[in-house]
Amino acid sequence: MTQPDARNRRRQSLQIRRARKNDRPAIWQIFRAVVATGDTYVFDPKISRAKALTYWLSPEARCYVAVSDQELVGTYILKQNQPGLGSHVANAGFMVAPSAQGRGVGRAMAKHCLQEATRLGYRAMQFNFVVATNKTALRLWEDLGFKIVGRLPGAFRHAQDGFVDVYVMYRRLNRVV
Amino acid sequence: MTQPDARNRRRQSLQIRRARKNDRPAIWQIFRAVVATGDTYVFDPKISRAKALTYWLSPEARCYVAVSDQELVGTYILKQNQPGLGSHVANAGFMVAPSAQGRGVGRAMAKHCLQEATRLGYRAMQFNFVVATNKTALRLWEDLGFKIVGRLPGAFRHAQDGFVDVYVMYRRLNRVV
Repeated sequence: MTQPDARNRRRQSLQIRRARKNDRPAIWQIFRAVVATGDTYVFDPKISRAKALTYWLSPEARCYVAVSDQELVGTYILKQNQPGLGSHVANAGFMVAPSAQGRGVGRAMAKHCLQEATRLGYRAMQFNFVVATNKTALRLWEDLGFKIVGRLPGAFRHAQDGFVDVYVMYRRLNRVV
Repeated sequence: MTQPDARNRRRQSLQIRRARKNDRPAIWQIFRAVVATGDTYVFDPKISRAKALTYWLSPEARCYVAVSDQELVGTYILKQNQPGLGSHVANAGFMVAPSAQGRGVGRAMAKHCLQEATRLGYRAMQFNFVVATNKTALRLWEDLGFKIVGRLPGAFRHAQDGFVDVYVMYRRLNRVV
């Protein structure tokens, strides 16, 4: 167990900012490592660098990075979940470098993301694809006020467990976190 | 009320086939008319022709049209709902020309779509955005074996009713319809 003091020091040193062009190599390293296990994200574990970065750095999404001691330890994207008459609901995706997991990086990015989404005028945030076996994510989203509003039977082809369920999670944004 | 015999004659004359390049003007006419009311589809009611056709005729989707007496009366698209490890679940969207509504065109396209999705090896079909006030669609999807598996509070900005709920609907594809 990391002591609370150590955790706080680490969190205090965490800076979250918009991604820049020269973050691309580090974002790809994180993306590749996170999807490689095939147990939490829908992306093909063998996705190419080009496809991954085209998706993550799409002009329709805002991309952020979390930096600790000048090292990029996480990244997230924030975008509309739907166009037009559904564009008041945000969607987001989060990735933490495997070497930085368990340090609160995901939680810090999620709080930052909820604040950004609120600031940008979104009325709610929706996650379309939370794999039911991903207990860490489920706990975090529930901690942050998300509710399970849907269950998709067998919608994820888990690398180890085969077809597992997926949750749709939702949270209104009527206050700053 | 249309008499059963008349309905059958109309349905018998309905042909459903893959879209061709020269169907584009008719597809756009249907798309424009269907989204203009802002009460069922998420697309901006004032979407441009280019944006609409880029979405509907995306290389990642298969587009079909329903033709009755040489007139294009409906169109649907069939695609993966997610990439990679979620690509075994299909997604589809349906549009019927306002002048042809109430004649079973939507139902005929939906059955065709379920058969196509089954043939292509999909294991399930998911609708991400069924507006709760769209009773015609809800009744049709439930008739065809779809279940409401999720509810998104206020996720649709309805042109008349303001923020209304949206359903996520899902159906396994283990048999031919």
